[in-house]
Amino acid sequence: MSGYFKPKNYKPLDTSSLKNFIIKNKNINKLIGDTDDIKIQEVGDGNLNLVFFADTKNNSLCIKQPLPYLRVLKDWPLTLKRSYFEAEYMRIHSQHVGELMPKIYDFDPELCTITMEKLSPHIIMRQGLIKAIRYENFAEDISTFMSKTLFFTSDLFLSASQKKEVHEKFLMNTELCKITEDLIFTDPYMNNKNNRWTSPFLNNQKAKIENNNELKIAVSRLKLKFMTQSQSLLHGDLHTGSIMVSKNETKIIDPEFAFYGPMGFDIGALIANLLMNYFSQNGHEKEKGDRREYKKWILNMIEEIWNKFETKFINLWSQFPNGDAYPIKIFNNNIKKINNEQKKYLKDLYIDTIGFAGTKILRRIFGFAHNIDFDWIQKDAVRGLCEHNCAKLGIEMITNPGQFTNISSLVEKAIEFDNLTKID
Amino acid sequence: MSGYFKPKNYKPLDTSSLKNFIIKNKNINKLIGDTDDIKIQEVGDGNLNLVFFADTKNNSLCIKQPLPYLRVLKDWPLTLKRSYFEAEYMRIHSQHVGELMPKIYDFDPELCTITMEKLSPHIIMRQGLIKAIRYENFAEDISTFMSKTLFFTSDLFLSASQKKEVHEKFLMNTELCKITEDLIFTDPYMNNKNNRWTSPFLNNQKAKIENNNELKIAVSRLKLKFMTQSQSLLHGDLHTGSIMVSKNETKIIDPEFAFYGPMGFDIGALIANLLMNYFSQNGHEKEKGDRREYKKWILNMIEEIWNKFETKFINLWSQFPNGDAYPIKIFNNNIKKINNEQKKYLKDLYIDTIGFAGTKILRRIFGFAHNIDFDWIQKDAVRGLCEHNCAKLGIEMITNPGQFTNISSLVEKAIEFDNLTKID
Repeated sequence: MSGYFKPKNYKPLDTSSLKNFIIKNKNINKLIGDTDDIKIQEVGDGNLNLVFFADTKNNSLCIKQPLPYLRVLKDWPLTLKRSYFEAEYMRIHSQHVGELMPKIYDFDPELCTITMEKLSPHIIMRQGLIKAIRYENFAEDISTFMSKTLFFTSDLFLSASQKKEVHEKFLMNTELCKITEDLIFTDPYMNNKNNRWTSPFLNNQKAKIENNNELKIAVSRLKLKFMTQSQSLLHGDLHTGSIMVSKNETKIIDPEFAFYGPMGFDIGALIANLLMNYFSQNGHEKEKGDRREYKKWILNMIEEIWNKFETKFINLWSQFPNGDAYPIKIFNNNIKKINNEQKKYLKDLYIDTIGFAGTKILRRIFGFAHNIDFDWIQKDAVRGLCEHNCAKLGIEMITNPGQFTNISSLVEKAIEFDNLTKID
Repeated sequence: MSGYFKPKNYKPLDTSSLKNFIIKNKNINKLIGDTDDIKIQEVGDGNLNLVFFADTKNNSLCIKQPLPYLRVLKDWPLTLKRSYFEAEYMRIHSQHVGELMPKIYDFDPELCTITMEKLSPHIIMRQGLIKAIRYENFAEDISTFMSKTLFFTSDLFLSASQKKEVHEKFLMNTELCKITEDLIFTDPYMNNKNNRWTSPFLNNQKAKIENNNELKIAVSRLKLKFMTQSQSLLHGDLHTGSIMVSKNETKIIDPEFAFYGPMGFDIGALIANLLMNYFSQNGHEKEKGDRREYKKWILNMIEEIWNKFETKFINLWSQFPNGDAYPIKIFNNNIKKINNEQKKYLKDLYIDTIGFAGTKILRRIFGFAHNIDFDWIQKDAVRGLCEHNCAKLGIEMITNPGQFTNISSLVEKAIEFDNLTKID
């Protein structure tokens, strides 16, 4: 079973064996120079990986090494190949969005380590949002990241053979895709021991979800799209915990879920996580209303992200109509001939995005893995109401995405549901 | 370049080297027994492959070997790997539809030969149809073949990991997919030296096609679907020249174009080729009207094929809802909960089928490779009218498939266009 893929010389590093690794590895050694004063600390807080910082006076590195199991569930083996997928995703996309990811210095196929630039003073974006910090460049940066990663690996830009060469590398990221298939598209919609939710407040909503056939059909359609539509090389887990930010910089990390899939899945992941943060803000207020302006800022940012993404994506397509799809040569090499189709393509992508975002919301409220946006709200009743209102929106997004004729109407619905004061 | 993939010991066989191969190969030798009286003849008439028959008193074999180039265009190299894809397609599908393909006895990865049962007295179906022969079991057989091959390799039946293992084998059939992408979805819609058509009769229609932006957009959408949607392991070239028939038997051959793609592409190929035969019949009449009854039979068969396919596919899905898509466990293990969705799935597939069938028609009338159904009509004016009327239907099928609300309405439109007496 590929779940047990383990290179012969793999073993989990500790601070001492990591120091040896750094001394012996030429790629890394030349960056870090004199290792006499090296300081190594383990900083990982994830379930899946060991993370170390290594600092000398010359340089600071971050070394990430996968574990062959989920830390919280040692009986859940997880392929070490995911570090290959992560490194390869970053290598491929760095041509176009290198400045929006940490620099990679080394990938070691035996230890499965990725050695990269240590980001400082960046923090995980989710934590910043919970503290109501504004990132004024974020909409600009993330719309660039998404438009470029999604466009430049699509059939709109690549020839079929170029695309297949990349697709082939990622096709067998079976296990991490399977996690998504189960935890996002399946388990939350049934009775499953890994599910949890804010009980008893959301018991009724959970029961209604399990009995909502229309919802389960719509989710299954999205799952099938996830499993069959190879549009672009996706990050696969593009939530606000996979983004590091400083005041002015945005860096995308952790693409081990990378695979060829439907573009809307990445964009939806991001929008869902911003919406969840929005709905969580009431729970983080110290005084009634002290998050009001911040909440407006988040919603504005959501609109800005989609609108900028749409514009940038169409501009890229118009500028580089090089792919085998919609071959420009049959349109007399005149991009104007496909302008209406570009708009339709983006409209379809928007609908996909809304639907996938809905599934991302429900999995974080009723599934296995939750967000600290909600989890850090201490009072169950308050958290329950925040989650309930957000989940209500998620259900609408999945079952009837077409009602949100544009991103503004999605934002309006979020405001409406955020104002609900009772759990039904 | 994979186009030049050639195993070290590959060389094209002749009757003498083939005899040696048969004597030395244990798999084959045990079937054929004594080789003293073996009779070997080369019978291939294709562009792509050598085909031999080897007969002894014990057995009769067919040996197919790919050439590393198109015979008609020696400067067009073509990967020898296609024999691997062909053998693998037959191996995989033989579990479910073994009786509808020739038996495979051996695949030699060095010579790239496939040794299989020699079919006798079967002929290529296209030739039978041109002679107005009826195949009363065909609708039953081909609907079984299509429903089983398409269902059993889809996410409706397989787990995601099972599906990806098969998908991985076929993903890099890049070159044969590229032939389809170019010859079907691109070249006929532009000025390309490989195109030909019945000139001058169809000059005007060809010019109108090149200027029909709506048509080119619709074709490009289908091309994108062909390139991105991995629904099932397709034959990839399922026309009536890839089917051998006897009075009561149907055998599908030549799946070297096999790849994971949209189901409608296979079904559309078949329906398009039956429609083209229908439109060609006027050109094969010896006396006015002597093909009238046969033409009705063809149209009835088209309806029967789709209707049987639809029923069989839904029945398979209901009987074996084992796949990771639409996981039955979230529907309380009750297939009735997804009955409406099954109908919608088949409706969507029907629309795909109509569109792909339209592209298959236009490529045979305005593209590189033509069908003998039309080509054997000697008088240019007669052939031109037959092709014109069929192409008119093809254009409607691509640009507005939704108008054909069911297969009967497609057949009605075929009758209407077949009655046109003037080229416009």
